[in-house]
Amino acid sequence: MKKQYKYLLNESDIPKQWYNIVPDLPNPLPPQLNPQTMEPIGPEDLAPLFPMGLILQEVSDQNYIDIPEPVLELYKIYRPSPMYRALRLEEALGTKSRIYYKYEGGSPSGSHKPNTAIPQAFYNAEEGVKKMVTETGAGQWGSALSFACQAFGIELEVFQVAASYASKPHRKTMMEIYGATVHPSPSERTDIGKQFLSQDPNTPGSLGIAISEAIEVARKEEGTRYALGSVLNHVLMHQSIIGLEALKQMEMAEDYPDIIVGCTGGGSNFTGLFSPFAKNNMESNKKTIIRAVEPQACPSLTKGVYTYDFGDSVGMAPVVKMHTLGSSFVPDPIHAGGLRYHGMAPLVSAMYEDNLIEAEAIGQRECFEAGQLFAKTEGIVPAPEATHAIASAIRAVKDADQRSEQVAVLTAMCGHGHFDMKAYENFLSGEIIDYDFPAEKVKVALESVQK
Amino acid sequence: MKKQYKYLLNESDIPKQWYNIVPDLPNPLPPQLNPQTMEPIGPEDLAPLFPMGLILQEVSDQNYIDIPEPVLELYKIYRPSPMYRALRLEEALGTKSRIYYKYEGGSPSGSHKPNTAIPQAFYNAEEGVKKMVTETGAGQWGSALSFACQAFGIELEVFQVAASYASKPHRKTMMEIYGATVHPSPSERTDIGKQFLSQDPNTPGSLGIAISEAIEVARKEEGTRYALGSVLNHVLMHQSIIGLEALKQMEMAEDYPDIIVGCTGGGSNFTGLFSPFAKNNMESNKKTIIRAVEPQACPSLTKGVYTYDFGDSVGMAPVVKMHTLGSSFVPDPIHAGGLRYHGMAPLVSAMYEDNLIEAEAIGQRECFEAGQLFAKTEGIVPAPEATHAIASAIRAVKDADQRSEQVAVLTAMCGHGHFDMKAYENFLSGEIIDYDFPAEKVKVALESVQK
Repeated sequence: MKKQYKYLLNESDIPKQWYNIVPDLPNPLPPQLNPQTMEPIGPEDLAPLFPMGLILQEVSDQNYIDIPEPVLELYKIYRPSPMYRALRLEEALGTKSRIYYKYEGGSPSGSHKPNTAIPQAFYNAEEGVKKMVTETGAGQWGSALSFACQAFGIELEVFQVAASYASKPHRKTMMEIYGATVHPSPSERTDIGKQFLSQDPNTPGSLGIAISEAIEVARKEEGTRYALGSVLNHVLMHQSIIGLEALKQMEMAEDYPDIIVGCTGGGSNFTGLFSPFAKNNMESNKKTIIRAVEPQACPSLTKGVYTYDFGDSVGMAPVVKMHTLGSSFVPDPIHAGGLRYHGMAPLVSAMYEDNLIEAEAIGQRECFEAGQLFAKTEGIVPAPEATHAIASAIRAVKDADQRSEQVAVLTAMCGHGHFDMKAYENFLSGEIIDYDFPAEKVKVALESVQK
Repeated sequence: MKKQYKYLLNESDIPKQWYNIVPDLPNPLPPQLNPQTMEPIGPEDLAPLFPMGLILQEVSDQNYIDIPEPVLELYKIYRPSPMYRALRLEEALGTKSRIYYKYEGGSPSGSHKPNTAIPQAFYNAEEGVKKMVTETGAGQWGSALSFACQAFGIELEVFQVAASYASKPHRKTMMEIYGATVHPSPSERTDIGKQFLSQDPNTPGSLGIAISEAIEVARKEEGTRYALGSVLNHVLMHQSIIGLEALKQMEMAEDYPDIIVGCTGGGSNFTGLFSPFAKNNMESNKKTIIRAVEPQACPSLTKGVYTYDFGDSVGMAPVVKMHTLGSSFVPDPIHAGGLRYHGMAPLVSAMYEDNLIEAEAIGQRECFEAGQLFAKTEGIVPAPEATHAIASAIRAVKDADQRSEQVAVLTAMCGHGHFDMKAYENFLSGEIIDYDFPAEKVKVALESVQK
């Protein structure tokens, strides 16, 4: 083992291809369905929403896909990202195990999201798209796509979940610095928005509603395309750049992870990290445990049902087979806004069904405690989403300590928490609530799915 | 020239010594004076405020001082910092010149401040200090010292200028995450604070008052020591780590700066960057132009007087010869809180007097425009302080373009602007004001100095 604080790659080490795990899975993914006909969709169904370059990636059977040169050029402004060994956290825990974390918070917008925002904007620009539209919850995805769109000369409209728009105005400002236009969702901008506002003018909104609004604009405005920040295959594949770099960095550390843990909202950050290691699990004698961490308040993998469901509130997005808590389910207001999605990526869901990955759910208090310990020792204040990954990593090494084993744990620190100080303020003043699993609400939401 | 986006050093490249420019100056620095006696101070005068390790550095005649191992260990969690070539900014400007920037925003607290916070906490801990006290304006210094103190097991109390405490509550939260106690200044915690509050219960406070409060606590509480985040020689010397790394990184780029620009509040970040290059100017045939940038609203170098003045509001800090606008001067509320100090570091002031460096003042509107262009092209949203450096760098290359010359400009991007979104919001909505040089207020403040 080569014990260092950081393992840094050079610009020339940025992978030149993304890794697509889909064709390597033991079973093919169930098809996506057209929300109107409930028939398997073809590229022509997706064409009003996405450029053909991304549609072909969504259904690709190739293991490796070349990263276009203009995308690589933009990756270079923040990639390769560092992999750290959490030596000071290990010391504070008194563990004999090793904790590594791949840090994506150094990107322009502060998370892993530009890894897919940049190629998405690129493929749209390549096909002549002049305007794009998307939704955002906590604002990480919206910030990333704002940066990427202006880099390729594309106008961007963002629908930000109203509760986040109000509670995190600084994310809106960041999107505007990059040149985007931001609406609180639901908004008067769309028919769907007007409908939700007429039912409840003070609705906090949801990611599902914001997706529906964005898709409505994309469908109505000639030449405008939609973009999604997680869940879909092509999005997860773009994130594989994280794991491909981490593979090289683990080599630099002369180590290999026994356990990989990562937080999952839609699943893109975590899949990005684990997919090259999962390939090794499937194809070599490696036996890395891969464990998703989700919030107790929104545990789609551990408590959801594996079934076909809508990705948005009104059924405009493709229908996919995934672990879901029901598309009408509105989770309790935990601070990790990026983990408040009712479903899990179809790819992650299928791998969970096939026992290629496991999952656990953790309450937010334990996560914030882990986050503060991480800040005190490693310096970086993690985003509330990322605190889940840290809490799980700490559990993993404590568990090994109890068994008197030494393990190497690798985790994904997907973003910094500089825009989440209100959440930490609540935590520090003891006001934070641990929400139990909302069994009754989920039951109701799932009943409507299964109809 | 080796054209890359980033020039990255390895952990093993972190300099093992700081560079102290003071003994290399053509003229010795004027002595600091005891504020009570107005006699030159000796180490014993400073002992109630600082540990001996730092006092000896303050007056050292050694060119290079070893960085202690525990300091190096903590530097490793974020150093070496990257030097970037601003290729996309250059392209947007259409310039043929080269712009390099050394980025310190990747540190735990988001600026260059940990470079000195860590050694200051270390030398205090080494001498058994259990509690420290300091002031902070915008909050960068307070955050950095909070992290450093907890790393060495030292309790910390911070007096944050009331206006910043109210307008930037998230910086307070960050300090609390690291374990510090934060008071708005002036506060009921000190006699000086009570006095200012009795005059005006709604006073916005000032850095001068906050320094006085912190010094009062350090003087009154047995064993408690004070720390200053800029201005003093030892602080500037700790920051030389920036320039020493940049020197190696310019070598990697196979280039050398014709012009170095940097923003100056107290002067530590900029001196840190330029000092090794200034040494080359003095000792070799190098002729790099070194240019400080200050805000039009608080131009201590370009409009201040070079004289002895107080560093704080009530005259408890050592009296130093510096460029000053008068210790009672309260600058207009520009967003770059870190550049709102009435004086300039004695070292920087002396070098300006000796024509070793030059200076210019820029209004904040031009700076924010430069900052937004930087964010759009380079991705990083700069702190309002750092936008001054970018505005000056842009001026420098435009000037070279007009003369059909190609120059290499190196600048210091001292921090990110994630906690300054309110400032950008004002800029984007067109509400930002360009304050002219406040000639009358400065005249009044300087009259009381010269008495």
